[in-house]
Amino acid sequence: MPAEPTSTEPTPAELRRHIAALPLIDHHVHASLASPVTRGRFETLITESDRPIPAGVTQFDSQIGFAIRRHCAPLLGLPPHASADAYWAARSERTPEELSDLFLAAAGVSDWLLDTGFKSDELLSPDTLAERLPARFSEIVRLETVLEGIAPTSGAARLADDFRTALADATASAVGLKSIIAYRYGFDFAPARPSAQEVERAAGAWLRELEAGAPVRVSDPVLLRMALWTGVDTGLPLQLHAGYGDPDLDLRRCDPLLLMPWLKEIEGTGTDVVLLHCYPFQRNAGFLAQVFPHVYFDVGLGVNYTGAASTAVVAESLELAPFTKVLYSSDAWGPPELHLLGSVLWRRGMSRALGGWVEEGEWSEADAVRVATMIGRTNAQRLYGLPHA
Amino acid sequence: MPAEPTSTEPTPAELRRHIAALPLIDHHVHASLASPVTRGRFETLITESDRPIPAGVTQFDSQIGFAIRRHCAPLLGLPPHASADAYWAARSERTPEELSDLFLAAAGVSDWLLDTGFKSDELLSPDTLAERLPARFSEIVRLETVLEGIAPTSGAARLADDFRTALADATASAVGLKSIIAYRYGFDFAPARPSAQEVERAAGAWLRELEAGAPVRVSDPVLLRMALWTGVDTGLPLQLHAGYGDPDLDLRRCDPLLLMPWLKEIEGTGTDVVLLHCYPFQRNAGFLAQVFPHVYFDVGLGVNYTGAASTAVVAESLELAPFTKVLYSSDAWGPPELHLLGSVLWRRGMSRALGGWVEEGEWSEADAVRVATMIGRTNAQRLYGLPHA
Amino acid sequence: MPAEPTSTEPTPAELRRHIAALPLIDHHVHASLASPVTRGRFETLITESDRPIPAGVTQFDSQIGFAIRRHCAPLLGLPPHASADAYWAARSERTPEELSDLFLAAAGVSDWLLDTGFKSDELLSPDTLAERLPARFSEIVRLETVLEGIAPTSGAARLADDFRTALADATASAVGLKSIIAYRYGFDFAPARPSAQEVERAAGAWLRELEAGAPVRVSDPVLLRMALWTGVDTGLPLQLHAGYGDPDLDLRRCDPLLLMPWLKEIEGTGTDVVLLHCYPFQRNAGFLAQVFPHVYFDVGLGVNYTGAASTAVVAESLELAPFTKVLYSSDAWGPPELHLLGSVLWRRGMSRALGGWVEEGEWSEADAVRVATMIGRTNAQRLYGLPHA
Repeated sequence: MPAEPTSTEPTPAELRRHIAALPLIDHHVHASLASPVTRGRFETLITESDRPIPAGVTQFDSQIGFAIRRHCAPLLGLPPHASADAYWAARSERTPEELSDLFLAAAGVSDWLLDTGFKSDELLSPDTLAERLPARFSEIVRLETVLEGIAPTSGAARLADDFRTALADATASAVGLKSIIAYRYGFDFAPARPSAQEVERAAGAWLRELEAGAPVRVSDPVLLRMALWTGVDTGLPLQLHAGYGDPDLDLRRCDPLLLMPWLKEIEGTGTDVVLLHCYPFQRNAGFLAQVFPHVYFDVGLGVNYTGAASTAVVAESLELAPFTKVLYSSDAWGPPELHLLGSVLWRRGMSRALGGWVEEGEWSEADAVRVATMIGRTNAQRLYGLPHA
Repeated sequence: MPAEPTSTEPTPAELRRHIAALPLIDHHVHASLASPVTRGRFETLITESDRPIPAGVTQFDSQIGFAIRRHCAPLLGLPPHASADAYWAARSERTPEELSDLFLAAAGVSDWLLDTGFKSDELLSPDTLAERLPARFSEIVRLETVLEGIAPTSGAARLADDFRTALADATASAVGLKSIIAYRYGFDFAPARPSAQEVERAAGAWLRELEAGAPVRVSDPVLLRMALWTGVDTGLPLQLHAGYGDPDLDLRRCDPLLLMPWLKEIEGTGTDVVLLHCYPFQRNAGFLAQVFPHVYFDVGLGVNYTGAASTAVVAESLELAPFTKVLYSSDAWGPPELHLLGSVLWRRGMSRALGGWVEEGEWSEADAVRVATMIGRTNAQRLYGLPHA
Repeated sequence: MPAEPTSTEPTPAELRRHIAALPLIDHHVHASLASPVTRGRFETLITESDRPIPAGVTQFDSQIGFAIRRHCAPLLGLPPHASADAYWAARSERTPEELSDLFLAAAGVSDWLLDTGFKSDELLSPDTLAERLPARFSEIVRLETVLEGIAPTSGAARLADDFRTALADATASAVGLKSIIAYRYGFDFAPARPSAQEVERAAGAWLRELEAGAPVRVSDPVLLRMALWTGVDTGLPLQLHAGYGDPDLDLRRCDPLLLMPWLKEIEGTGTDVVLLHCYPFQRNAGFLAQVFPHVYFDVGLGVNYTGAASTAVVAESLELAPFTKVLYSSDAWGPPELHLLGSVLWRRGMSRALGGWVEEGEWSEADAVRVATMIGRTNAQRLYGLPHA
């Protein structure tokens, strides 16, 4: 269970206990680091910036840095708000496995849905995690990673078919899909399924680049759309990174409202779409979740990075959306502190937002308990078909 | 008067009493349901989604659903937070007229400005409402409805003149106009008045479609602009739906900032523009209300749908805008619960926002009372030329 | 020191004392009025609207008007919340110099960085201010003003060189630059440095207009980009107006996210960019400040105009951005009330935001003190190379 939050707010006691003890489903997360990292590397892993940290500055001087010192330090035997140097010293005494065990266990998560498609060689394997932790691990398959995996040995005329076959193989035991079209292009893509001719033409151009030695990275919008539509065909829930991320993306083009035409195109297919993170567009995501039955979303990632200020982000995720359409994720990758913080900060934000409405008499405490359970757990169970135990 | 809100916040007593008792002017609203509805139909009327509710899910699990159970249940003799089933059972014992009487009276509204242009055949008539309630009812005329009413019997060369005449007739006793160009096109329309030739050409194309059996629905931007400019010519306050609504609209194209070029074009005419609702663009609307003397706005609709979370929306509407430029509306259509909730949630949000500033010493209580009166009542009286009794 | 804020919130005492006493660096501000103004003129100076105030309405009925009556009235010997008429009467008894002395001293600012490029003939000179106040005054040079100063006597082929020379002269003792490309064009400009041929062509067209009698006002995007790139070449911190301002600007095109391509273009130069004000795009600015090492920002101007509601704006500025990248400014121009209010409201917002996190146990009080000092003072010292005394 996570470190108990300190608060002077008179959150209703039963609700607070319930939220603190609720086993969460982290429906979009990556594994924790497999190897020790330097402090410099660690600091680049607690920002979405991929630029070097300027001299004389520490990335600990940020909301997420303060949250690590507040909530993770006590698990290393330090007082809350221990200095960054003290934190680093204590952290350096543990192996990556020990840190992973410590923080992931404290997150109080029963089910981790792992996106395995991003730099997985730097992370502990799902099998290792499953051996070390009393939790379930399921897989989310990243469309672009599968496509990039088969492209070098495929051909222009058969890339689409090869991808469909490879995706079927890759998802044999997966519970969902993920696309990063937000990063690779933006959400202002043509909504229709591309024709076979368009795909073959785009595939030909891409494969010629690969033969000429280009790194294997798909960014052609026709190929990205082909992958997305093939994903829709599987019927698996389809996660889309939305909003805030590293400066690779053009944040304006990651506003989920841009997806409206495509969401209408796929509405009849039965496939559900999950908008991940969405900051600062969480209100727009709430709108889409209200008006489209097949749209879900979370505010992971943004919650971690806004730290003490994340209550506002959580509260904004509870405006328009039906409570059946909101999910919990940490989007942690690498430092297991992130796996814990997602949980601690979400629990804190929910306690404060829902607790406030109970205190004001706007919500009953029983309803608040029920909504916390839906968002933290049962919505994900239903959406991904997870076991209810 | 509305159900007294329960609150643990130390809102100043005099301000709280004043806001609770203030007779409001609901400057944009529709009538209440004329006939009983099934529970399924009711649930589609408490969301902006026009899609079927998925199996196993109830639309009561949302902020607006919780607000109904909290604030409307007591008027049906139930405890606050009664279950959705209990609520539905108690509601089903009343006729539509009884429900309308109950909830509209409890809203504490002295003047209802009814937009009669949307599915009015499903609603109680203004005359029926006026007979049953001790309140004034005025009419807001929807431009597109008038245009669609005359198009089938008009001609391309005389559509503009016929519309001008029909609008003069329709507004003989109206206090304002409404446009839904946000739904039918978006706010990124050409700002200039279209020429007579452009209108005749567009009218010809549209009327040929109608003759060929197309449903009567105007969506050509030239014709929408012609209607808007003819509306401006009347000098009546012109309401524009802005922001959030059903998925018919492209929310990105309903950002009121897109209206800046057109607002500058009409600035010399003396006609005032009222941006309705605006969620999640209420800060943008506040900017326009500050910099343009002829721009007003409200945050109706969004307040109902964000329920317990609506305090933030109300507070954001009080940032940049002069207090003379903000109005109250519910935008209720159909279930009379919506007519009540608009009032209850607005009073709660204003009590909390203004009360907070008084408690902190930032505002005097007398100023807060005065601002509540302006926004809830006197701004609308001045803008629409309503009686001051 | 500013008037002590009244508050019922249990802000930690040490933090509150520290923030109240902290000597600020106002890193973007203009001078105070040199001559008496009429009440009508004064009211146009407490709004970003450049339109006449409608009859029967006072601009005092706004957040900024209420903030003036609350925080400035006591310095004129009136009670807090004195009426606008009483305030005006008391204010009218002072000379512009007396008012400037009174309000600027009370702001508790040790260093004022003056943008001297906008209507400076209506304002007290930096020398006059420096004589009257125990504070340091430094200069920020406005690129467009320098360009407009040399254009009438330059030529198409040498405009770029003449500008470079003039800018070198103008910045001999300046600490930073400012651009208003947001006003003159928008942020959706071509990111690359324009070629010499492009500049000569655009310069020729502009100079022909000037010869034909056009007012000297640069708005050609090629020339604006030339000025911006020449500014980048100086290595001085480059301030860009972003977001909210008068209706001259198209607010949608002032979203700092539109700058991403240009920010990437200049990233290697070593020049830092400071996004000024940013309302309502402060969350977008925070994203840019996190992912780009060379991006800083503030929420001045918006804080003044949102008055009692500005706590939310301040809090939103503390979400994603590293605390090393946020600055304080008032953006005051003219009425010295604005110089004071920026300080009072920033201190209040910081006390409430940071104080709240300390009360909740999320931040230590020592960290909160440190972050307030960074944002109010030391970040600007480091960025602009100011003396540390």
